[in-house]
Amino acid sequence: MKLGVCYYPEHWPEAWWDEDARAMVAMGLSVVRIGEFAWSRIEPEPGAFDWGWLDRALDTLHRHGLQVVLGTPTATPPKWLVDADPSMLAVDYHRHVRGFGSRRHYCFSSESYRDQCTRIVTALAERYGNHPAVVAWQTDNEYGCHATTLSYSAGAVRRFRRWLAARYGDIAALNAAWGNVFWSQEYRSFDEIDAPNLTVTEANPAHRLDYQRFASDEVASFNRLQVEILRAASPGRDIIHNFMGFVTDFDHNDVAADLDVASWDSYPLGFTEQFWFDDDCKARYLRQGHPDIAGFHHDLYRGVGRGRWWVMEQQPGPVNWARSNPAPLPGMVRAWSWEAFAHGAEVVSYFRWRQLPFGQEAMHAGLTLPDRSTDVGGVEAAQVAREIAQLGPLPAASRAEVALVFGYPSVWMSEIQPQGRDLSALRAAFEMYTALRRLGLDVDIVAPGADLAGYRLIAVPMLLDADAALATKLAASGAQILIGPRSGSKTRDFQIPAALAPGALQALLPLAVTRVESLRRGASVGVSIDGVAHGVTRWREWVRTDLTPRARFADGGGAWFSHGKAHYLAGWPEPAMLRTVLRALTEAAGIATTDMADGVRWRRRGGLCLAINYAAEHRPAHAPAGAKFVLGGPDLPPAGIAAWRLA
Amino acid sequence: MKLGVCYYPEHWPEAWWDEDARAMVAMGLSVVRIGEFAWSRIEPEPGAFDWGWLDRALDTLHRHGLQVVLGTPTATPPKWLVDADPSMLAVDYHRHVRGFGSRRHYCFSSESYRDQCTRIVTALAERYGNHPAVVAWQTDNEYGCHATTLSYSAGAVRRFRRWLAARYGDIAALNAAWGNVFWSQEYRSFDEIDAPNLTVTEANPAHRLDYQRFASDEVASFNRLQVEILRAASPGRDIIHNFMGFVTDFDHNDVAADLDVASWDSYPLGFTEQFWFDDDCKARYLRQGHPDIAGFHHDLYRGVGRGRWWVMEQQPGPVNWARSNPAPLPGMVRAWSWEAFAHGAEVVSYFRWRQLPFGQEAMHAGLTLPDRSTDVGGVEAAQVAREIAQLGPLPAASRAEVALVFGYPSVWMSEIQPQGRDLSALRAAFEMYTALRRLGLDVDIVAPGADLAGYRLIAVPMLLDADAALATKLAASGAQILIGPRSGSKTRDFQIPAALAPGALQALLPLAVTRVESLRRGASVGVSIDGVAHGVTRWREWVRTDLTPRARFADGGGAWFSHGKAHYLAGWPEPAMLRTVLRALTEAAGIATTDMADGVRWRRRGGLCLAINYAAEHRPAHAPAGAKFVLGGPDLPPAGIAAWRLA
Amino acid sequence: MKLGVCYYPEHWPEAWWDEDARAMVAMGLSVVRIGEFAWSRIEPEPGAFDWGWLDRALDTLHRHGLQVVLGTPTATPPKWLVDADPSMLAVDYHRHVRGFGSRRHYCFSSESYRDQCTRIVTALAERYGNHPAVVAWQTDNEYGCHATTLSYSAGAVRRFRRWLAARYGDIAALNAAWGNVFWSQEYRSFDEIDAPNLTVTEANPAHRLDYQRFASDEVASFNRLQVEILRAASPGRDIIHNFMGFVTDFDHNDVAADLDVASWDSYPLGFTEQFWFDDDCKARYLRQGHPDIAGFHHDLYRGVGRGRWWVMEQQPGPVNWARSNPAPLPGMVRAWSWEAFAHGAEVVSYFRWRQLPFGQEAMHAGLTLPDRSTDVGGVEAAQVAREIAQLGPLPAASRAEVALVFGYPSVWMSEIQPQGRDLSALRAAFEMYTALRRLGLDVDIVAPGADLAGYRLIAVPMLLDADAALATKLAASGAQILIGPRSGSKTRDFQIPAALAPGALQALLPLAVTRVESLRRGASVGVSIDGVAHGVTRWREWVRTDLTPRARFADGGGAWFSHGKAHYLAGWPEPAMLRTVLRALTEAAGIATTDMADGVRWRRRGGLCLAINYAAEHRPAHAPAGAKFVLGGPDLPPAGIAAWRLA
Repeated sequence: MKLGVCYYPEHWPEAWWDEDARAMVAMGLSVVRIGEFAWSRIEPEPGAFDWGWLDRALDTLHRHGLQVVLGTPTATPPKWLVDADPSMLAVDYHRHVRGFGSRRHYCFSSESYRDQCTRIVTALAERYGNHPAVVAWQTDNEYGCHATTLSYSAGAVRRFRRWLAARYGDIAALNAAWGNVFWSQEYRSFDEIDAPNLTVTEANPAHRLDYQRFASDEVASFNRLQVEILRAASPGRDIIHNFMGFVTDFDHNDVAADLDVASWDSYPLGFTEQFWFDDDCKARYLRQGHPDIAGFHHDLYRGVGRGRWWVMEQQPGPVNWARSNPAPLPGMVRAWSWEAFAHGAEVVSYFRWRQLPFGQEAMHAGLTLPDRSTDVGGVEAAQVAREIAQLGPLPAASRAEVALVFGYPSVWMSEIQPQGRDLSALRAAFEMYTALRRLGLDVDIVAPGADLAGYRLIAVPMLLDADAALATKLAASGAQILIGPRSGSKTRDFQIPAALAPGALQALLPLAVTRVESLRRGASVGVSIDGVAHGVTRWREWVRTDLTPRARFADGGGAWFSHGKAHYLAGWPEPAMLRTVLRALTEAAGIATTDMADGVRWRRRGGLCLAINYAAEHRPAHAPAGAKFVLGGPDLPPAGIAAWRLA
Repeated sequence: MKLGVCYYPEHWPEAWWDEDARAMVAMGLSVVRIGEFAWSRIEPEPGAFDWGWLDRALDTLHRHGLQVVLGTPTATPPKWLVDADPSMLAVDYHRHVRGFGSRRHYCFSSESYRDQCTRIVTALAERYGNHPAVVAWQTDNEYGCHATTLSYSAGAVRRFRRWLAARYGDIAALNAAWGNVFWSQEYRSFDEIDAPNLTVTEANPAHRLDYQRFASDEVASFNRLQVEILRAASPGRDIIHNFMGFVTDFDHNDVAADLDVASWDSYPLGFTEQFWFDDDCKARYLRQGHPDIAGFHHDLYRGVGRGRWWVMEQQPGPVNWARSNPAPLPGMVRAWSWEAFAHGAEVVSYFRWRQLPFGQEAMHAGLTLPDRSTDVGGVEAAQVAREIAQLGPLPAASRAEVALVFGYPSVWMSEIQPQGRDLSALRAAFEMYTALRRLGLDVDIVAPGADLAGYRLIAVPMLLDADAALATKLAASGAQILIGPRSGSKTRDFQIPAALAPGALQALLPLAVTRVESLRRGASVGVSIDGVAHGVTRWREWVRTDLTPRARFADGGGAWFSHGKAHYLAGWPEPAMLRTVLRALTEAAGIATTDMADGVRWRRRGGLCLAINYAAEHRPAHAPAGAKFVLGGPDLPPAGIAAWRLA
Repeated sequence: MKLGVCYYPEHWPEAWWDEDARAMVAMGLSVVRIGEFAWSRIEPEPGAFDWGWLDRALDTLHRHGLQVVLGTPTATPPKWLVDADPSMLAVDYHRHVRGFGSRRHYCFSSESYRDQCTRIVTALAERYGNHPAVVAWQTDNEYGCHATTLSYSAGAVRRFRRWLAARYGDIAALNAAWGNVFWSQEYRSFDEIDAPNLTVTEANPAHRLDYQRFASDEVASFNRLQVEILRAASPGRDIIHNFMGFVTDFDHNDVAADLDVASWDSYPLGFTEQFWFDDDCKARYLRQGHPDIAGFHHDLYRGVGRGRWWVMEQQPGPVNWARSNPAPLPGMVRAWSWEAFAHGAEVVSYFRWRQLPFGQEAMHAGLTLPDRSTDVGGVEAAQVAREIAQLGPLPAASRAEVALVFGYPSVWMSEIQPQGRDLSALRAAFEMYTALRRLGLDVDIVAPGADLAGYRLIAVPMLLDADAALATKLAASGAQILIGPRSGSKTRDFQIPAALAPGALQALLPLAVTRVESLRRGASVGVSIDGVAHGVTRWREWVRTDLTPRARFADGGGAWFSHGKAHYLAGWPEPAMLRTVLRALTEAAGIATTDMADGVRWRRRGGLCLAINYAAEHRPAHAPAGAKFVLGGPDLPPAGIAAWRLA
């Protein structure tokens, strides 16, 4: 449990560096990320490296005992490089070249740019691979951010064709898999295939899905290129990437397979403002962020990182990039930090050490101000550092009793062919997660390929491409299994299964979905559960089965089916219905639940339980009688936290 | 009165065809449309035709006694054709080439593509022109769908210049007609004229109007090319095109002039979700569709088809293309089918036989499911088939007492120069139609050039280009004539008439519109009619006349003028005001009206009256005392229908 | 105080001209603007001028004693010119060439187009420079309208690089000023710099700001080119440009520095519909326009024109270009005219003489109708003419006691880096203006460089780039000074000042802004002033200071600071809070205020006070006891005006 910070020595007078390092240590920070956007300073002219400043920066930090994460600067190639090879730029859906002048201005499929990355990463790794300050590397920065996963460049199309040839072997197989007989979309060779952009009406969803898979693979191979260089030249250091919250355009598991540690960038207020939450929710959590944004990602990246994960960038105050950018509630930076440690983060690193007076992020807060005084975030970080010292080592983060199965390709499918608005697989996973945590539960978010043994409850909220391997693992798990609608509704080729949805999951329940409907905002279909009125919104299904439904829609159709330990929801439940279903399943699974007050969340590490209050008012911590508080107490003020040891 | 279905043998194993045909017959279907997207199967390599599968498909259908509508596949040219001649692709307003990968990826003005169409249609017509199964041909598919009428390609501009030269003779005439002296838009030759896209601010409305007229003519000549080939090679077969609902970008009358039968594709739920209806209406008719969408189009295409018309594609369950896609109410597929027959359809053909497990339309329901079982739509279609058999031949569809004059160019004018939001000529026509049908009236929607003799009431809701020929016919008709605002407000050249609006219609009423205003949503201007408070929304006019207004605005201006049998509304009436006006006019015309309950619609065929309930609750059929029911009864359940013989 | 009109002889039969001129005189008009879009008539073929019609038009107007403003036709180059040199066209953000077919289709940076302008303006000036009818020239038309200030053409980039080289001297200075070390945006030479469009995410704000400054300078130099020709060839005539309301993309002061008179085009109804006002406000002022739109611009252009200003185009009825286009309230054209004279306009010129039956503006009202009869606007203009005659010369427009400092670059900064929605510097200035005028105050809107001596209250609502020179002038003014948030928050290079905001204004108050937040719509932060609950919306700041706040936020932070005569607001006040603050400051400054009824506005000229009622209901004029009315009386009907002499 360490605190860190993102620092840009190149932004500040060299005369300030020593004092900055001293102040970091005084604040309780021990990890410093540097370098990830510094290409134009490392190589100001083609081939002419300037290592001096970076040598001195590393030495300064090292002198103060700070551990350095060194970033590869490949997210920001300098202008001379772009001018020498404009083909390296990405091309957007509308065929506009995405130009120089901000960041992430490259196409993952550019082979010439990959060569440039090899060159610069090799140079960096050779120079600093064994530097004593360097404890870890970060590859690039926020892959996929600013919608950069997909590029429609000529180079991307060229590599897409090769990727397809490798995947399908012959064109007839591709035509069959994509269903190209529909609308005469058949190809005679891989060379006839273009990117799926600027079609007259929607492109073939299978075409789009493969383009997304290809693009995801391109991110992974792009990252792997750097990892291989770093691993060879810098033994013993962790290799990390900082994933961006709510970016799902590529499969993070595939990238993380090559990493030692997963990390993510946590901006709860910006995410709350920019994502799907309704106005009421945005207003309520204006200065705290939706209470599950941080937790959802923590639990996701713990899985992605195979247990090892950091928060690489933690919001320290107002950000600059949302439509509106409120200040966090006093105490909120501390609370977010503790939420991360509660979920098992190794490091929480704030972004950034000091607010910059210029550039695109000039309005982004730091731990300190442009005039070098300490900002609110810095005060709270120091408090966290003191609390960490005071608490001493915590128990290991517990494996949860509940798993939530989440897969990136399923998100792509649900977005490529939404059928109805407002319910992607991502949003469904998030809403399921909220329902679980409002019952006081810890949750592991796991990939479909993960080991599921030992869980007592496994939720599969909306996994369109659930396959036989998963079905087998679910059946073998012994857990209560909650399957949401659309799960298993598509094969790997994005086709409806021959025996209809839920496809391979029919091994768990004998039922077939014969019809689905999506519902406009405001519409719902009533469901009665034990005489209580509930409802589904956005999605409803009709099921053919011999099972007697456990709950029915108003028109008599089954809404909730159970078969042994497997349960199927034939619609997307409103929160109260989902809570009712989950209560029944946790009871069956022997899992204790707690009805958490609105805005309060728990997370356990072994015998320690942390409670965090995201509400803007006081809330109870729900601590059990006899809880021994090591932080806070039974009443949680706004942004308050408490921790107690369980009996 | 036949039932049909759209079938794609190429999508399914050949081993299934025979059973499919058998099942169609068992369901009561007798017409099958095939082939319209099958180019890549008919000609998998350039010039190498594969007729075998199509021969066998036709023979299979024929063997079961099914009648085939064979579609020309020109809406989906295969990739090899596009690659050989990329100039055939359309170009959008933003100069993006609209690429391969879905459908309708061609420019109507591409002469090389017209040659390709000639080639493939000739080959098809020669092979199957006299096949005993083939009873009709469908040209292409849904002209104009996906905003494909207008293309801004170089080829289109070239032909536009020729079209202009032919229309105007010399450039001075064009400059005068377009008013090009305004803003120095004058041209020195036709070769200087471009398409009206990507101008700095709005383009000259006359320029846009002629571009739309040109594009409309291109659709007609493109279609004519196919018709001429088919007529020559396939004598005795009907030639049909399937128009798409609410597509008004080209003049359907011009295309239909070359056809034997007009048909349209009826998707009431998708249209309700996607078009202008307010949220309340969309929620109320979520699973039924707005009660006038089907009727409006039926009555429109009866006119377009000069009495002969089909529904070529009838929604059989949820569709895939709206923002949300609810399932129809149980019974709704049956009700829509009967509404079509009530209006005089020769054939109602469902789209599609079986839901496809792949492709862009995988989430579109069929009459049967991907697992070959029967879906809800199939059950209802079979019920309709039984009811048709039970009822026997119906009387011919009655000529209505009421005509509604509707012209495509007027729609273009109202959209090119809207002056205010939310009131195109299309929407005005639709709202007028609703008002008439809520009074229990049958309506003929007729083109401005149609014969108007014999009608008792003629509504001209918003015909911007009403001309002297129409005025003469209206005057001669002897009918009560209701003229809505904006009618006659523009000459053929899109100019304000010298004597002001309503221009040529001043022959009917001595008045001149001196000023118009458009009103934002929520704003209205009060009108008092016989002491009752009414109002207009969206549009209001000031009129100079010696006539005494029959109703006045709150500020004293005239809102409703009558002169003999001609009536003029100087604003767009709210529903209650329109109803009041129509009641007065129908009374004057000696037409009986009925105040229909919300959601109930009538349509007569000779002595038979059908009633359909679009409400989600029970409604009265409003059958007269002594009505002899042949279907249903006096109470209509949701989606219910009833039919009775008039005394 | 003259009335004028915009007239297009080229649009009408020559036979009508004489009668038109006679009717203008009869209506009381004495100034006529002509020619500004007539290039294709002046030079129908390259190099072949046709002066005949223009000679005769000028002579006709002159014969009737009308004074002519002759416009240069450079806003509408003819097609032959565009075809001969397509490089003259502007290019939009998405790299689309903005084509011929409307107006303003040129790039300010096109050197070849500047040559063409030199040629045509020289020809015009030589021919008519000493014509006795010509009293003034208008350069071009509405610079910047239709978002035409910024062009991304190759020519613009070329000149931008030259402009940068001149501004910065060497590239290191630019890199430092722009903070290009951030994200490796550093350049090695000016030739590497592109326009800031189509970047992957937002471009560097300093890059954008300099591109806007460059573009603004291009407008000024483009205009200067014409001014120099006109001044040389047409001595003694005023040179004017007609700025468009709410266009702020270039610095109007820089353009006006070369002019004799500033003028603007006043379309209160269209502006109300199209700009930021909420639905309730748009509904309330549907037919009157927001009561401060006209006044704000009048007071702005009086400053821009250094005291001399006109309304070149006054809305005379419904316009054609807003989403909806209502008719003005009866009397409103008269009221707008008087509001202009009350603020000191030399001329109010209506747009246009006659509604045109064709072209993009066919639905735009004129003073007369296409059938040559007089429209409502014409009747009201004649009334104004009679009232002017009746009143005789008015006192000079008073210098106000209150100045509002407004700078165009500050608007650009606030829009380039908004940080939060709904609060640009323009909108802040407008809301401050409203608050002042609701207190019955006259306001001078002044540039930051203006002389501030003699004002009693100076408001600096949101001047991001407030600098030391301004601070010095403010301190020296002796006035009460109200500084709004964000003022002084950026240096000239768009950087945060070293000592934090309000930067140079810290010379007035010892405080530093350590944090800002922006708030979503609906959110506010409570402020208590003397026990009364108030609030700020959209923007809130945290301040570090030894001053005791005069008002505090609910969380204890200071909301209003005073230091001597300087006052700082640490948030954007709700109207009631702003009114409370202004009341305190006006009292301190010894300025009398009046609580004006909603919709009523005053403006004084010496001892004469004019009151105008923008409400749709009767309102009191708030005339003091004993006021001697020369127009109207103490009760103002809707659109009513009154004028009285002060004691």
